[in-house]
Amino acid sequence: MSELIATYLLHDEKNPDKKAEEIALGLTVGSWTNLPELEQNQLQKHKGRVVSIKGAHSEKEEQALISIAYPTLNFSTDLPAILTTVFGKLSLDGKIRLLDLQFDHGLKKQFPGPRYGIEGLRRKLGVYDRPLLMSIFKGVLGKDLDFLAKQLKQQALGGVDFVKDDEILFENELTPFEKRIAEGKKVLQEVYNQTGQRTLYAVNLTGRTSKLKDQARKAAELGADLLLFNVFSYGLDVLQELREDDEIALPLMAHPAVSGALTSSSHYGISHSLLLGKLLRYAGADLALFPSPYGTVALEKDKALSIANELTRKDSIKQAFPVPSAGIHPGLIPLLIRDFGIDSVINAGGGVHGHPDGARGGGLAFRQAIEANLKGKSLADAAKSDIELKKALQLWGSAEVYTK
Amino acid sequence: MSELIATYLLHDEKNPDKKAEEIALGLTVGSWTNLPELEQNQLQKHKGRVVSIKGAHSEKEEQALISIAYPTLNFSTDLPAILTTVFGKLSLDGKIRLLDLQFDHGLKKQFPGPRYGIEGLRRKLGVYDRPLLMSIFKGVLGKDLDFLAKQLKQQALGGVDFVKDDEILFENELTPFEKRIAEGKKVLQEVYNQTGQRTLYAVNLTGRTSKLKDQARKAAELGADLLLFNVFSYGLDVLQELREDDEIALPLMAHPAVSGALTSSSHYGISHSLLLGKLLRYAGADLALFPSPYGTVALEKDKALSIANELTRKDSIKQAFPVPSAGIHPGLIPLLIRDFGIDSVINAGGGVHGHPDGARGGGLAFRQAIEANLKGKSLADAAKSDIELKKALQLWGSAEVYTK
Repeated sequence: MSELIATYLLHDEKNPDKKAEEIALGLTVGSWTNLPELEQNQLQKHKGRVVSIKGAHSEKEEQALISIAYPTLNFSTDLPAILTTVFGKLSLDGKIRLLDLQFDHGLKKQFPGPRYGIEGLRRKLGVYDRPLLMSIFKGVLGKDLDFLAKQLKQQALGGVDFVKDDEILFENELTPFEKRIAEGKKVLQEVYNQTGQRTLYAVNLTGRTSKLKDQARKAAELGADLLLFNVFSYGLDVLQELREDDEIALPLMAHPAVSGALTSSSHYGISHSLLLGKLLRYAGADLALFPSPYGTVALEKDKALSIANELTRKDSIKQAFPVPSAGIHPGLIPLLIRDFGIDSVINAGGGVHGHPDGARGGGLAFRQAIEANLKGKSLADAAKSDIELKKALQLWGSAEVYTK
Repeated sequence: MSELIATYLLHDEKNPDKKAEEIALGLTVGSWTNLPELEQNQLQKHKGRVVSIKGAHSEKEEQALISIAYPTLNFSTDLPAILTTVFGKLSLDGKIRLLDLQFDHGLKKQFPGPRYGIEGLRRKLGVYDRPLLMSIFKGVLGKDLDFLAKQLKQQALGGVDFVKDDEILFENELTPFEKRIAEGKKVLQEVYNQTGQRTLYAVNLTGRTSKLKDQARKAAELGADLLLFNVFSYGLDVLQELREDDEIALPLMAHPAVSGALTSSSHYGISHSLLLGKLLRYAGADLALFPSPYGTVALEKDKALSIANELTRKDSIKQAFPVPSAGIHPGLIPLLIRDFGIDSVINAGGGVHGHPDGARGGGLAFRQAIEANLKGKSLADAAKSDIELKKALQLWGSAEVYTK
């Protein structure tokens, strides 16, 4: 029998065994022991099952980890049905957090995963041997297309692989969606002709839900490179539908906006690794942004790593790029590569634009730091000849990583 | 200048004044003091504004309430854009909870609100002078249409105004969506012919996001009464689009499944009153379910009341029915009416089906309790002549409310 196994963390639950049984029945067939045998036989294949119960004691509070198996027969194979089943009413029921979902092979096959994934994006860029580099438009509200074009050019000249829209840039008169795509293409082609550097632009797909596919198809027609998408302001299934549409067929970059409302509490909500890792990947994100463990808007390191792990672990579904974001400057490259490996995207805003030589200098400093680190050189060493890196380290410092 | 004002609760923030300024700038124009005057003039209309900062001290922790005004010029007038603006990146930024959003008149006009609302639903039922009564299908997984029809009939015979699907009933072979509607209609018409009691059936609208409108239109064609919708498994904008579609034009009942992941923490996420009250109402829910303050899956009373208050307060947008749910039995009627008034829906599962005389008896007991309470009679008094109520009180007890 095909099952979906959900694992929950409970706090202050006096009787985890009883609770687990209540969940397994309450979220499936409702009741059991008082049913006639005939009905039990009929309902057996719909009945939830307690897989495991593990008590955990911390100094401050009682914890328990429980795993419940739900027959996949009980729901349609879409994420709204799955979330409603495993964490619908239950999300309202005391101190309970959904930690993980284990999809069996049959169920997993119903989900598309990334269209391109790490391999496909590397192929688009022709870059295989280093982490990719991304920068973010800054201060774009109220600015015109000319401003954006200039900012894009500087970023591309710095050697970044991706430039992404600010996620709070919506459809507006000064820099409309379609014009951003067209203008972006023009600028990036110029830079390519000039330098041979290929930079891809992720344009923010926004607006009403039912119009997104048309917008995205239009973007594809106009030759857009990628779509940035605030998936948690819409819904995971909306992302999945964008992924599944062969007329769109663009790489999807999932932004974590609003997700903190679901993930931040240690007692409630949904774990980082499940929401920003596994579910984004299954639904079809090619890249997933999440807070880095280094910046001011920092996520605890084990949580950030757990997301990256879910995005990249070997699976029948393609790997997605982890994009630890916020607070990133060139001096952090040794840490980033140590923690997230080369199959990650290094993403910076202030760390690119705030460089003394501007965005171009910022990009170059990052590329220099990456090259040095992968060659086993210290940043300090590299900064002797790499002038942009030197200026970056002077401004922001660095976190060298020494192998023991 | 049109503005949207967001109010946040901060915990353990050492410098709320600085934080508020950072938010007002960081989520709008990015920076300010270092901009040339010309640029400041150009960007003034996009700049966020700190409205107020209130410190609050509790014994255990520092709290602060801050309000930030965002120019509506900065976003398109849809909920995904609004949520991304006011609680996108910010949701990831420490101990911060979004408490409220104040839409000004111009912005509010962009949202439809309920198509029917309290008045429209009362007109459909011809019931104006009492709280409405709802019951829930129970134990429906793995059961066939005949089972559902019988259960529906018993509930309707008990005099309930609404019967809702179990929210975990998805499209399935035994009781498919369209057949549930057709069969439900037949049964409820029979009961109406027999008793003159009009009961409406809320069918669960499920499946992939882009197919929901077609499904809902089909439901309307088949003469469905209402749609139940797990809005938080999809997205608020999806609900709004269902509301706005004139070919659907059915009342929408919003289920709180999954919302606990957003609302439960006192430090993070989104307040109950905003998410389950104001936003559901603006987006177009005619009825909104939320945990009652009485049951086992209980919500603190002030929170439950804050939701009801947002759903019903006088506004240019129609009122939506509060539906406090879970743990409701006839003995709680005096509490429910005292707390939620007559413009609410009393919703019971076990409190209807678990009645010694079955669902019909359960419904009757509720109606008897409601009638007694509105006439100023105690339940104990009414139970002398109302046999179903008597049995309910014997089983579940009662919570009489005495006026001082």
